[in-house]
Amino acid sequence: MSDLVRLSLSLEKPLLDRLEKLVRRSGYTNRSEFVRDMIRERLVEHEWDEDREVVGTITLVYDHHVSGLSEKLTDEQHHHHRVILTTTHVHLDRAMCVEMILVKGRASEITELADRLRQHKGVLHSGLSASTTGARIR
Amino acid sequence: MSDLVRLSLSLEKPLLDRLEKLVRRSGYTNRSEFVRDMIRERLVEHEWDEDREVVGTITLVYDHHVSGLSEKLTDEQHHHHRVILTTTHVHLDRAMCVEMILVKGRASEITELADRLRQHKGVLHSGLSASTTGARIR
Amino acid sequence: MSDLVRLSLSLEKPLLDRLEKLVRRSGYTNRSEFVRDMIRERLVEHEWDEDREVVGTITLVYDHHVSGLSEKLTDEQHHHHRVILTTTHVHLDRAMCVEMILVKGRASEITELADRLRQHKGVLHSGLSASTTGARIR
Amino acid sequence: MSDLVRLSLSLEKPLLDRLEKLVRRSGYTNRSEFVRDMIRERLVEHEWDEDREVVGTITLVYDHHVSGLSEKLTDEQHHHHRVILTTTHVHLDRAMCVEMILVKGRASEITELADRLRQHKGVLHSGLSASTTGARIR
Repeated sequence: MSDLVRLSLSLEKPLLDRLEKLVRRSGYTNRSEFVRDMIRERLVEHEWDEDREVVGTITLVYDHHVSGLSEKLTDEQHHHHRVILTTTHVHLDRAMCVEMILVKGRASEITELADRLRQHKGVLHSGLSASTTGARIR
Repeated sequence: MSDLVRLSLSLEKPLLDRLEKLVRRSGYTNRSEFVRDMIRERLVEHEWDEDREVVGTITLVYDHHVSGLSEKLTDEQHHHHRVILTTTHVHLDRAMCVEMILVKGRASEITELADRLRQHKGVLHSGLSASTTGARIR
Repeated sequence: MSDLVRLSLSLEKPLLDRLEKLVRRSGYTNRSEFVRDMIRERLVEHEWDEDREVVGTITLVYDHHVSGLSEKLTDEQHHHHRVILTTTHVHLDRAMCVEMILVKGRASEITELADRLRQHKGVLHSGLSASTTGARIR
Repeated sequence: MSDLVRLSLSLEKPLLDRLEKLVRRSGYTNRSEFVRDMIRERLVEHEWDEDREVVGTITLVYDHHVSGLSEKLTDEQHHHHRVILTTTHVHLDRAMCVEMILVKGRASEITELADRLRQHKGVLHSGLSASTTGARIR
């Protein structure tokens, strides 16, 4: 953690009151932390727009009864092993699997990998959550 | 416009530097205005979540050659005349029309109207832009 | 309108039942129209990703008491007159204005214009709704 | 997997051609699979809107040097142990951690948990990916 400095802003009194309410309603105890979180969120969006090195989570829901699917998904992941940090698998019921894949690499590589995994027959749903290495938002 | 007051926040020095860059890159000349805009954006999201009175823009693209469509869209709009402030129509080419409908009412009413308009055969695309009366973000 | 052709798809029986329910719940009377709308929505997203010629609606909420703001917004719009099809203005209350600006041009031009308009002090909220000329989704 | 049935739709010939292109460009080899994926995506959105039992992934990036933070995040997670299926942790660099938390429960519970985790000082970024148990999209 770096040392803290002061940032002083001007805003209309009613807007300040609304901000206070929004901070409380959002469960924050600290106004500064709320604003810092807004800034960091914008910085992360910007990292993805600029195709920087980022972190992401791919979530796949699939039916492991589909013949050959597990092998294909494993193959695809090995093919991209350099960007995959780790994979966690949970058996949801007799048929359904969910897999969380933590990835780190250029935004475009991650997006492409998520697209490729989604296309396999038997993958019922796939999501990509855009996150960050943290290196450029500290 | 209300009088301006000061809001003083603490944040890490590197984060402040990143904020400065983000402000410039986003074309703002003023740091305070950038942060105020982030706050107001959150407030507007909150208005929609809370189903408050809001403003929105519905954009429809449709083929006016589809028999009876213009009449149906007009009927539907009259049925909701209380929430429609104004409608602007542009002829895009021989077949295509675009209509921007400015609406003011409860968020759920506006969403429902946008859904109803979208369903008509011949409406090729429809979008809803979530905005505000401005009353609760000043 | 072009002539209709048949598209035949295979899907699991339970998924077909869920589709039927989703169609009804979404207020559509027609299954084909529901699927066509999903396809067209994807095509429009693709137009924006590929920076094609598109249509969009910019919605601005601003306080006309802010000195010089109306002039600045008008100047900015004239500077981009080639992409602006029409502007509709409504007086929301004593202070607040809302303006819907219908634009047609390359996606990146439209996004840039929306960004520039947002930055003016006194503009409290701004939204951009991504639509289409209709030419590539018929 | 259930048996497959046929779904026959009507659409304009040019729209069919555009669909074919979109399917190929999106990397799918199979038109039916592309449309099924669109339908399932809508069904999952609907599950979240209706506050059904769903699956989600929460991704947290945080600085483990922040005093007491790891304990607080662990406490919070134990407090919600019934909805947390598993947590995977990766050390990104000397300071930064990333944690993927797989959750299963009502959509509102999951959203609330994600909100609570985000608010802790030292959590630099947090994302929630909306997924599904697969039970209602088969």
